[in-house]
Amino acid sequence: MPKKEQFESAGWVTYRPQIKVVDCTVRDGGLMNSHRFTDDFVRRVYQTCVAAGVDYMEFGYRASKKIFPPKDFGPWKFSGEEDIRRIAGENKTGLKICVMADAERTDYREDILPKKDSVVDCIRVACYAHQIPTAIDMVLDADEKGYETTVNLMAVSTVPVFELDKALEVIAQSPAAAVYVVDSYGSLYGEQIADLVGRFAVAMKGKKEIGIHTHNNQQLAFANTIEAIIKGATRLDATMMGLGRGAGNCPMELLLSFLKNPKYLERAVLQCVQDTILPLRKELDWGYSIPYAITGVLNEHPRDAIKLRESDHPDDYVAFYDEMNE
Amino acid sequence: MPKKEQFESAGWVTYRPQIKVVDCTVRDGGLMNSHRFTDDFVRRVYQTCVAAGVDYMEFGYRASKKIFPPKDFGPWKFSGEEDIRRIAGENKTGLKICVMADAERTDYREDILPKKDSVVDCIRVACYAHQIPTAIDMVLDADEKGYETTVNLMAVSTVPVFELDKALEVIAQSPAAAVYVVDSYGSLYGEQIADLVGRFAVAMKGKKEIGIHTHNNQQLAFANTIEAIIKGATRLDATMMGLGRGAGNCPMELLLSFLKNPKYLERAVLQCVQDTILPLRKELDWGYSIPYAITGVLNEHPRDAIKLRESDHPDDYVAFYDEMNE
Repeated sequence: MPKKEQFESAGWVTYRPQIKVVDCTVRDGGLMNSHRFTDDFVRRVYQTCVAAGVDYMEFGYRASKKIFPPKDFGPWKFSGEEDIRRIAGENKTGLKICVMADAERTDYREDILPKKDSVVDCIRVACYAHQIPTAIDMVLDADEKGYETTVNLMAVSTVPVFELDKALEVIAQSPAAAVYVVDSYGSLYGEQIADLVGRFAVAMKGKKEIGIHTHNNQQLAFANTIEAIIKGATRLDATMMGLGRGAGNCPMELLLSFLKNPKYLERAVLQCVQDTILPLRKELDWGYSIPYAITGVLNEHPRDAIKLRESDHPDDYVAFYDEMNE
Repeated sequence: MPKKEQFESAGWVTYRPQIKVVDCTVRDGGLMNSHRFTDDFVRRVYQTCVAAGVDYMEFGYRASKKIFPPKDFGPWKFSGEEDIRRIAGENKTGLKICVMADAERTDYREDILPKKDSVVDCIRVACYAHQIPTAIDMVLDADEKGYETTVNLMAVSTVPVFELDKALEVIAQSPAAAVYVVDSYGSLYGEQIADLVGRFAVAMKGKKEIGIHTHNNQQLAFANTIEAIIKGATRLDATMMGLGRGAGNCPMELLLSFLKNPKYLERAVLQCVQDTILPLRKELDWGYSIPYAITGVLNEHPRDAIKLRESDHPDDYVAFYDEMNE
């Protein structure tokens, strides 16, 4: 009988079994409500990830309680072992669990336990280019404790190429399993994504997976994820109904219907979106809107657009355009 | 002094002066309200196109009054000369005016006047593959009367390749200035758009422009338009805020900010969106939603999704998914 691998030469008509989908609904979506999701919500997302064949679910940040007073945030800012176990028990499923550890905002030596005491499988270390030394230290710490790790290089659209090449050289030597192209500002077009994924792949010499995390400021989150796949990315971040900061992320429902691997069942995601994510629209304003397009085009952090959207004049596009172009 | 043409080798860092942008806001948007836009609305879109440096504006269909009783539709189903003149006068501007003539739904011999009696510049003939003979007759008729013409091959995602190649062979011999890849169902991914635009270009032997008209069912309308540009398309359809049937079209504001030609001024479009298009949201439900994603993925006409969205259970995604997959 022919093996799966023999079919790979058919390109997009087949599927790439190496691809892994990472659900970031609770983590990136948490940026819209100070991580105050109910246990019921998080449980529903977890059960959906299991049912849909998603490979990883990121529960939230594991932020420093010294820097961020717990009274000001919901549980998924910290994603303690006890929080995750309340949802997933010992997680006897095929789904792997991640938390995100932000460089300079995580007490990683204390708050990340030895793997044997943890229900978490993978520590995703998020950093800006200038934080690479800290990120590497965090990767080494988590690796030594027994975790899979990734480096998620944020705001990559703002990193000058000479700095990027140096950063990738350092990351390539680390034990991280994957390095991510993170378009935090939603400013990149497909050709730029292709260039970056290619550049990352060359720098990693085939020894690490390349990941992609997109934002939808220019309605390109899904398209850019596809572009990254074409260029060889195999770790794909997505969120249900695109729930995420500002313009949101690559929608899980679109991504799963694009991927041809029969293990992915988008119907489960549609049910969760219908019952659990859509009702959040009443309270949270995520997704494409023109202020986010403006910050995306300008390669700026979405913070000013978020402020505008939360103000009493969320649709004052031209004044915002003028202000941002000053 | 160096000429513009010398800069072209720099690729996306420069711009392609051959590119022409076509505003379809009133025509495609009219499919959401039986073409009942007020004169004020159409005038505002017209003035915006002029101010923003848009190359063409499509005012609406020029449909047969025998097939479509005028009492059941607004004026932009027919877009008579007197209707257009009410808005544009003799159109002493740089903007060219189009109407769309649907194959088998237009009394073209009578209703399309000699160009000298018309304020219209370009007749866009829309057809399905099996209507090519009629479409060619319409192109010849309009060409003889003095108009620029285009052939807009609808639902191209459903045309088998042997039929498509024959169709393109015939279109190549016509006097049409451009032939359009029309993704009516919003079902095509970037690689498929690239394949089609390339195929169209080869068939036209460099003698016609290639056009692109996308729908946003999978949040790919803008990305697919960019893909088409990369493959050589030079006529780009877009609508303000994506206003158009179902999931809508490539948003003009995103397209103009992508194109680097300094003649395009997206600020004028943002003003129109803010003042004139956004308020329509209260009455018209266009834009991405999951039912449109489902018909897009399945390469189906959006009619069932439109029905669902107009029903009392517009967000019953899973039942719709099951029904469409039966």
